[in-house]
Amino acid sequence: MVQKLPGDIYRSDLKLADGRDISYYDSSEKNRSAADKRNEEAQPGIGHLRLDPLVDEWVVIASHRQHRVFLPPKELCPLCASTDDKLTEIPDKDYEVAVFGNRAPALTTPKGNFKLAQFSGLTTPDVDAAGACEVVCYTSDHSSSFAKLSEKQIRAVLEAWKDRDSALSKLPFIEQVYIFENRGEEVGVTLSHPHGQIYAYSFLPPKIEKMLQVANDHLAKTGKVLLDEVIKREIKDEKRIISQNSEWIAYVPYAARYPFEIHIAPLRGVSNMSGLDEKQSAAFAPIAKEVLSRLDGVFGIEMAYIASWYQAPVNSGKDSMRLHWQIVSVRRQPGKLKYLSGSESAMGAFIMDLEPEQSAQQLSAVKL
Amino acid sequence: MVQKLPGDIYRSDLKLADGRDISYYDSSEKNRSAADKRNEEAQPGIGHLRLDPLVDEWVVIASHRQHRVFLPPKELCPLCASTDDKLTEIPDKDYEVAVFGNRAPALTTPKGNFKLAQFSGLTTPDVDAAGACEVVCYTSDHSSSFAKLSEKQIRAVLEAWKDRDSALSKLPFIEQVYIFENRGEEVGVTLSHPHGQIYAYSFLPPKIEKMLQVANDHLAKTGKVLLDEVIKREIKDEKRIISQNSEWIAYVPYAARYPFEIHIAPLRGVSNMSGLDEKQSAAFAPIAKEVLSRLDGVFGIEMAYIASWYQAPVNSGKDSMRLHWQIVSVRRQPGKLKYLSGSESAMGAFIMDLEPEQSAQQLSAVKL
Repeated sequence: MVQKLPGDIYRSDLKLADGRDISYYDSSEKNRSAADKRNEEAQPGIGHLRLDPLVDEWVVIASHRQHRVFLPPKELCPLCASTDDKLTEIPDKDYEVAVFGNRAPALTTPKGNFKLAQFSGLTTPDVDAAGACEVVCYTSDHSSSFAKLSEKQIRAVLEAWKDRDSALSKLPFIEQVYIFENRGEEVGVTLSHPHGQIYAYSFLPPKIEKMLQVANDHLAKTGKVLLDEVIKREIKDEKRIISQNSEWIAYVPYAARYPFEIHIAPLRGVSNMSGLDEKQSAAFAPIAKEVLSRLDGVFGIEMAYIASWYQAPVNSGKDSMRLHWQIVSVRRQPGKLKYLSGSESAMGAFIMDLEPEQSAQQLSAVKL
Repeated sequence: MVQKLPGDIYRSDLKLADGRDISYYDSSEKNRSAADKRNEEAQPGIGHLRLDPLVDEWVVIASHRQHRVFLPPKELCPLCASTDDKLTEIPDKDYEVAVFGNRAPALTTPKGNFKLAQFSGLTTPDVDAAGACEVVCYTSDHSSSFAKLSEKQIRAVLEAWKDRDSALSKLPFIEQVYIFENRGEEVGVTLSHPHGQIYAYSFLPPKIEKMLQVANDHLAKTGKVLLDEVIKREIKDEKRIISQNSEWIAYVPYAARYPFEIHIAPLRGVSNMSGLDEKQSAAFAPIAKEVLSRLDGVFGIEMAYIASWYQAPVNSGKDSMRLHWQIVSVRRQPGKLKYLSGSESAMGAFIMDLEPEQSAQQLSAVKL
């Protein structure tokens, strides 16, 4: 069955041999029906959650992931389309965008009527690692990248994100949907094929909890939405803006934490990915492509980055939190990385080696 | 002038050529007087603090650090003792333990009557990066490590830590003293000579703020100190304990975040480093040496780690927070590191690939 989505994107839903779902997102109506010919068994077990009592935060224990595939050569890439000789995660012989459940998921569907909220405190037992982990393949072209996708292809990725955000938000055990891309071996990527991921958590991740609290406080105190105010300040300061179009703005934030850090936000704020309207969706591809191309252009090498969509939780913060995309790169010079060492990782206190204005200037100076 | 400290450690205070303080900590009374013969100018300027409005956290902008020395060869090591041919950061021809101000500090003494607490909110201007950054050289032996120090030498390091904790806590602009070691190129170490650091912050680092809040809540609700309760649970569970002596206990915590993570705490809780008494101080070296040796023994290679002392802030939490040492290693297998990628660094949600019990078992099985 094919479903038509905004932007003339067509979704086809199929099953993999081990029972996982796969959806293809195409820019024209296609009859996707290729069967997964692998002889697969369902993945073993579920991980568990443990509460760290010193900070009251959940930690996901997923020891079944220890032996996952690590940087396979191109000819063994599980994210390429299948061929007669090689059966991959994507059964069809070609695809535009494909989304499917992670083969070794840290978070999975829990048993029974799952309620994490009932657990707290020092004697919390192990709890099912409830949630979902999905893979979003951006293109069948193994050596491409998000920045190199056509605008049409980026629109298909965006519609896949919106569609999955909407679907995952409806699951009763999900509290937060996190759409992201880790890119580059420097940030631990185990598969080089252009792809992103979606983690849907059954708890509020600590960073979201903090953002929600700060955004709610700001709304209560001033009656204003925090991200709207942040964007106003960036527009007033001007010097850290990287790009802007009718619907989106991209800037190095005033208090950037990483040598190259870019925030991209819709000018008319929306709380969640699935709330982006047609105008916003249509205007996303050009600015996304430009910003990621500038990032690759700074040193003339493909930059390692983590690209994260921040948005309101499923069940709160719709009036205070606003969707935006944070792209952070750990590369501070061609041969030097920024590491999260003691101050950053143990204390949460970031030391930034570059003035945000200098970083913005370098990004703006890239000739595209 | 030589000052006698507990554990028969003697401290001598001198000045470096650019005005920075240096203190030697010796296990016998020595007349330290070697002058710094370098022709040095004072370091330029101070960095600044910027408030990240989305999470209400301070970020340190220290662009003057960008060009610091990066992994020099042994013959150029600035942390070795000076020789006739080579003048280093330590003017004397030998030393046991030496502490001095960082040459390119992210945090330094602010001008005038500094009060960070007056600043908050969206329109906060740049603020002086007030604080202190110090280097603690553990030994003059370039190719040694903390685990390889003699117990006598570890005692000298401990007394240096206590002494500096006490001194830095008295500075009016300091809110938190953080004593730590980054070890290994994998966590961004730029100098391989065995050394640790001390960062004294003029703000509460986000992790400490959270720990303080959770510890205060626990105390208010139960009348009990959180870390005492955590240790009771670890003793009851037993299976994650790595080592114990009359004064200290070492365990892999129930909700460990890193493949190898060990917490070491005094059995009789104290809020701060400088509060360790003679019995606790005397019993520290053997357990520290054992635990770090076990860590190096797991894969038979020197493990990269971040070793962090958590303690109460200078001006709060003395009744709720307790001193302990967290050692976390990012190495999960001989050829594989754990990276802080999207879930960990952008969401703060840790995915742990190893059962904490399995990690404890591997550490306990190491033959010393």
